[in-house]
Amino acid sequence: MKTAAICTIGDEILIGQIVDTNSSAIAIELNNIGIKVCRMISISDDGTDIKQSIKSLLHNFDIVIVTGGLGPTKDDITKNALAELSGSRGDIFHEGQMQVIERILAHRGIDISDINRAQAMVPDTCEVMVNRKGTAPGMIFRFSPADFTHCPVLYSLPGVPFEAIGLLPDVMADIRRHFALDSIYHKTITTYGIAESTLAKMIEPWEDALPSDMHLAYLPNPLTGVKLRLSIYGGDRDEEIRRIDREFAKVMPVIGDAVYGEGDDTLQSVIAERLTESGLTLSVAESCTGGFLASLFTAMPGASKYFYGSVTSYDNSVKKNILNVSIETIAEHGAVSRECAEAMALGVSRALNTDFAVSTTGIAGPDGGSEDKPVGTVWVGVAYPDTDHPGKTAVISRMFRFNNDRYTNIQRFAGSALNLLRTVLCSVLHA
Amino acid sequence: MKTAAICTIGDEILIGQIVDTNSSAIAIELNNIGIKVCRMISISDDGTDIKQSIKSLLHNFDIVIVTGGLGPTKDDITKNALAELSGSRGDIFHEGQMQVIERILAHRGIDISDINRAQAMVPDTCEVMVNRKGTAPGMIFRFSPADFTHCPVLYSLPGVPFEAIGLLPDVMADIRRHFALDSIYHKTITTYGIAESTLAKMIEPWEDALPSDMHLAYLPNPLTGVKLRLSIYGGDRDEEIRRIDREFAKVMPVIGDAVYGEGDDTLQSVIAERLTESGLTLSVAESCTGGFLASLFTAMPGASKYFYGSVTSYDNSVKKNILNVSIETIAEHGAVSRECAEAMALGVSRALNTDFAVSTTGIAGPDGGSEDKPVGTVWVGVAYPDTDHPGKTAVISRMFRFNNDRYTNIQRFAGSALNLLRTVLCSVLHA
Repeated sequence: MKTAAICTIGDEILIGQIVDTNSSAIAIELNNIGIKVCRMISISDDGTDIKQSIKSLLHNFDIVIVTGGLGPTKDDITKNALAELSGSRGDIFHEGQMQVIERILAHRGIDISDINRAQAMVPDTCEVMVNRKGTAPGMIFRFSPADFTHCPVLYSLPGVPFEAIGLLPDVMADIRRHFALDSIYHKTITTYGIAESTLAKMIEPWEDALPSDMHLAYLPNPLTGVKLRLSIYGGDRDEEIRRIDREFAKVMPVIGDAVYGEGDDTLQSVIAERLTESGLTLSVAESCTGGFLASLFTAMPGASKYFYGSVTSYDNSVKKNILNVSIETIAEHGAVSRECAEAMALGVSRALNTDFAVSTTGIAGPDGGSEDKPVGTVWVGVAYPDTDHPGKTAVISRMFRFNNDRYTNIQRFAGSALNLLRTVLCSVLHA
Repeated sequence: MKTAAICTIGDEILIGQIVDTNSSAIAIELNNIGIKVCRMISISDDGTDIKQSIKSLLHNFDIVIVTGGLGPTKDDITKNALAELSGSRGDIFHEGQMQVIERILAHRGIDISDINRAQAMVPDTCEVMVNRKGTAPGMIFRFSPADFTHCPVLYSLPGVPFEAIGLLPDVMADIRRHFALDSIYHKTITTYGIAESTLAKMIEPWEDALPSDMHLAYLPNPLTGVKLRLSIYGGDRDEEIRRIDREFAKVMPVIGDAVYGEGDDTLQSVIAERLTESGLTLSVAESCTGGFLASLFTAMPGASKYFYGSVTSYDNSVKKNILNVSIETIAEHGAVSRECAEAMALGVSRALNTDFAVSTTGIAGPDGGSEDKPVGTVWVGVAYPDTDHPGKTAVISRMFRFNNDRYTNIQRFAGSALNLLRTVLCSVLHA
């Protein structure tokens, strides 16, 4: 099995100002074509360190993917380090990348400077992968047995995430052409609403009986729930997938309807798919989640097919004036209550004229809350077409309590609301 | 200067299912106390690999911080590897962590299982840092000269981000007690609205004249703009900070009002601070940003002091019915137009009764758009108190064009809207 290392370069990563999202995006693609990612490392914008670290990775792995350090500004020195490592005799001008640089700067109304022009210069030892989304080109360096006996290949990508990701198809196509690849098979099922440790206890007998060549992993996330992933290295693709499917089929009845999808499915993608298929519409009323729940839908292309809009009613005046929640409801039960969550869901479904609506009202913290309703408490509501009384709207709500920081609470609140919406949507569509 | 490495453990990271956010959070804290982070590495849940990699880090660095691999489920084997590395003779029970485990599970209404109980068992070679936010304890392992001549210290933290972050104060306090620390000083100024390469050209003479012991870095981000960071290692704190301030003072007039803050300031934090100080209120009307812009405000504690709410008017019926944008405006100019952006800002400020309002309407992609209005086009509007005509509301709008993927376009659209709001807010407050 071919092995890979991913190396991100940049002081901004080592001092923590930037979170590295490139490595995971690259790892997903490498895994998909059967390359085992054995290392991710981050190093600073230091020429000596870059050369030493990359040399060590080239010694130990077949494929090294480097991101970062190719920007137009003076703290970027990766290109020089790679030139030296590959024995380049000088830079050459790349016409194709220059055309992209000109187009991008013209589109943004910016004049071309010498700094921009320098980005189209590359070491004479590399093959260029033209970066169509940014100014710094991708580069391929192939090493000979004289350099490293196992002839590794190094791919250098820009640090800007969507530019790096834009070049991945080129990288993967090149890797496929140059290496005889082993296989790896993953399959993931996605669950929501059962804590990781509870789930582990529930499926322990199944896990203990798994074939020894299958590896199970738990992947918990406050927003998407706990994913269960089975992996096998090598073997015949169809047969291995069948074997994984057989194992999952045994455990699904144990987990029940907490299973909501597979692979990259999220609660919102499953909901979006069902709403789109059935021509139904959705609106959102938020208090504590403050726009975040709506943004999960609109982050996905095609949201306009089913998503009409949302109201963030942070101030109680907005709950009253836009969502028609009565002052009495808020005075009697509080804004964080079953009654308010249900009134918000009904109110937004009427105001925006949608089939379904989902609402959240809770206390994300760090301040606020009371003994009855501590920080971490949320009520979520769902308004839906009443299948028993055609033309009427029904509403349902649930309370949840979490124990997290503000950021994670907001994610868990949104996840809980999505999960209630998913289960209601399922039962309405199957009614 | 003491050096550190951060090591994250987990197959979920190497196959790309999880983005590692712990390393950057830890790096920020280490930098703040003058520890130089030289490496971040991610390795798999493999006992042999964990032992070898951690051993190598302990050989090369003074401080090793490990996160992950402490969960309740069976794919977590870090604790065993650390026990072996540190020569533990067995696990011992930790009463303090068990109390937390009991409290957390009771709060969530979950029964305690053997798996949970096992989390309170730790190697007899470690000191426990009680994790109050989760079930897996933090651990400190101190190595003797017999193990490694430079006596490194290893801190093991849970992988769940808010649990790891919750333990950082304990880690930093321990590091301060055990090492004589050198100093590092960073200062950052934050700019918005000038592209990185343009900014680099503008300030090139200043950059070339910087003292040789000062390091400048450009940190671009689609949402917060380009940050400029000056760093110095060592020296007297007050004197070095003064020297950095003197350099920044020289360049600020060159950059002009694109500078909006310093350090961790974001456009939204600066806006929130000014609105809160002056007792003014804000509402948001979104189309293409779909809830994301509102969520930037509500993600910050204290938003209820100035943020009344938002309307995501994804469907044109919502623009018309809730925001009072006329059908004629949309028919004549399109939903992505100056007229619509201005009507949305005015509409939401009236509907929600706020002093200021900000709006976005654009095409985030990947589909849609036209030759006139390609993907990446956005109009942003701001409604504000008309200082020339007290009691009236004025409105202003701007068009921007970007060249990104959907995710990045949404971020840039939101950033552009925030920046227009910031500049309008400044001039109203200074009028």
